[in-house]
Amino acid sequence: MKELAYYDGTIAAPEELKIPFNDRVHFFGDGVYDASVGGNHRIYLLDDHLDRFYSSANALDIRIPMEKKELGELLTDLLKKVEGETHFVYWQVTRGAAPRNHAYDSEMTGKLWVMIRPNRLRDPEVPISLITAEDTRFLHCNIKTLNLLPSVMASQKAEQKGAQETVFHRGDMVTECAHSNVSILKNGIFLSHPNDQYILRGISKTHMIEACYRLGIQVIERPFTLTELMEADEVLVTSSSNFCLHAKEIDGIPVGGKDPVRLSRIQKEVIEEYLRYTGKSSLFDDVV
Amino acid sequence: MKELAYYDGTIAAPEELKIPFNDRVHFFGDGVYDASVGGNHRIYLLDDHLDRFYSSANALDIRIPMEKKELGELLTDLLKKVEGETHFVYWQVTRGAAPRNHAYDSEMTGKLWVMIRPNRLRDPEVPISLITAEDTRFLHCNIKTLNLLPSVMASQKAEQKGAQETVFHRGDMVTECAHSNVSILKNGIFLSHPNDQYILRGISKTHMIEACYRLGIQVIERPFTLTELMEADEVLVTSSSNFCLHAKEIDGIPVGGKDPVRLSRIQKEVIEEYLRYTGKSSLFDDVV
Repeated sequence: MKELAYYDGTIAAPEELKIPFNDRVHFFGDGVYDASVGGNHRIYLLDDHLDRFYSSANALDIRIPMEKKELGELLTDLLKKVEGETHFVYWQVTRGAAPRNHAYDSEMTGKLWVMIRPNRLRDPEVPISLITAEDTRFLHCNIKTLNLLPSVMASQKAEQKGAQETVFHRGDMVTECAHSNVSILKNGIFLSHPNDQYILRGISKTHMIEACYRLGIQVIERPFTLTELMEADEVLVTSSSNFCLHAKEIDGIPVGGKDPVRLSRIQKEVIEEYLRYTGKSSLFDDVV
Repeated sequence: MKELAYYDGTIAAPEELKIPFNDRVHFFGDGVYDASVGGNHRIYLLDDHLDRFYSSANALDIRIPMEKKELGELLTDLLKKVEGETHFVYWQVTRGAAPRNHAYDSEMTGKLWVMIRPNRLRDPEVPISLITAEDTRFLHCNIKTLNLLPSVMASQKAEQKGAQETVFHRGDMVTECAHSNVSILKNGIFLSHPNDQYILRGISKTHMIEACYRLGIQVIERPFTLTELMEADEVLVTSSSNFCLHAKEIDGIPVGGKDPVRLSRIQKEVIEEYLRYTGKSSLFDDVV
């Protein structure tokens, strides 16, 4: 099949699958998710994503209806059913189905959802444009929940302005983007917000930091400011779908471009990890 | 029928109705809602609730698929289909159905949902117990969204502790409860948090304030502190389902009970408005 949707044991095309009215996601956004790239039908950094997924569910007392290993096998089996070379592999768990009530039965078993579709990774050599917005989100950004309205509104605003992402800031402190992390290079040092309640611990970012250590590049995880962002040597934007992008402008003002060699070494190191893991020869699919 | 669910033109029992996988509520909690009590098959303060519902949708650029008047008629017609005297009438709009992507097609038409079921109002003469929790929600609490995870977790904690609601506070400043407003009486004055981004403009609270004015009770809308809450003469908890409750304890410490006459006058005024509106003779249904 070309795209796949899964809910609680049932597989169908996304346009055909139906969800019970009483699933608590309908009334509370009551669930958590994770996602990665499937390359050559291997889910990139699957163990990292499963660890984060179970941690998110745990933080909200949501019971994933199977063990980690079994879920990994299910996702891999489902990915095999979908044609193509590169995929977006997305999964979530909702707390369960019951008549609407804020409080829940703590024995309730979660409902597992999966969605897999073709994916085309962005070319990391092509820089992106960013806008900025005040970060008005809740203080649980370390949990990958389905309460994503502020990110939806920020992403829409970016698209309307012809940008690819929105950088959030709390006052002067940069946190992360609407659906990516943001880091900077300054004077040869890789700077990024620490993994506190204001940001999601990005798996691509974590692997980029490991790449920096391998390359002997110093890493400092501390909050940085909007001014530091605008004056950075390079601005890096990472997500599980696009793991090593960089920005050329923010709110229409040129940024970065001042440390291209170091940027390029980091990107190369990160891409090579992906190619080794998936056995692919390029980020892009063969055009037939 | 005993309970009713509606989605995008289809009516069924809640256990039987199914929702398309691609509804954006599934991935982002992308929707807003409103709810009221149906008494004698009249939706209490329907116009106020419709005004708030359209304002919530507007704030998030969500398109409700019909005009206000038509929605009011639909809700009233649906309520007539459900047996009983007193109901919980709940409705929501989700942004629409499309493959998952943060940004959306701005022409997308929303999907309307309704759920109606029997309701039993709490006895306002029986005081409730509260707990407190730090308010970690986003800064859009004035919009009645489906991003409700912090309220879910706070409600669950209240239930586990044998309490009926959780009072949120940002540092020392009291905001509101997990699914109610909270106000206090002190030295004969009715004090409540103003309608800013930290709280929902409660319709029951608004009508309670109007009742205070009719009764000649002074009203001040300003933030108040946890200390003021604990030392209040009376603590009032209002929601669209239970519009004039009061508290006897918070975190196990006795509160209120020091201005019962004024409390009772306010409760009586508020209840009489409900009885006049619905034509019912009591908050409670006749037991047959």
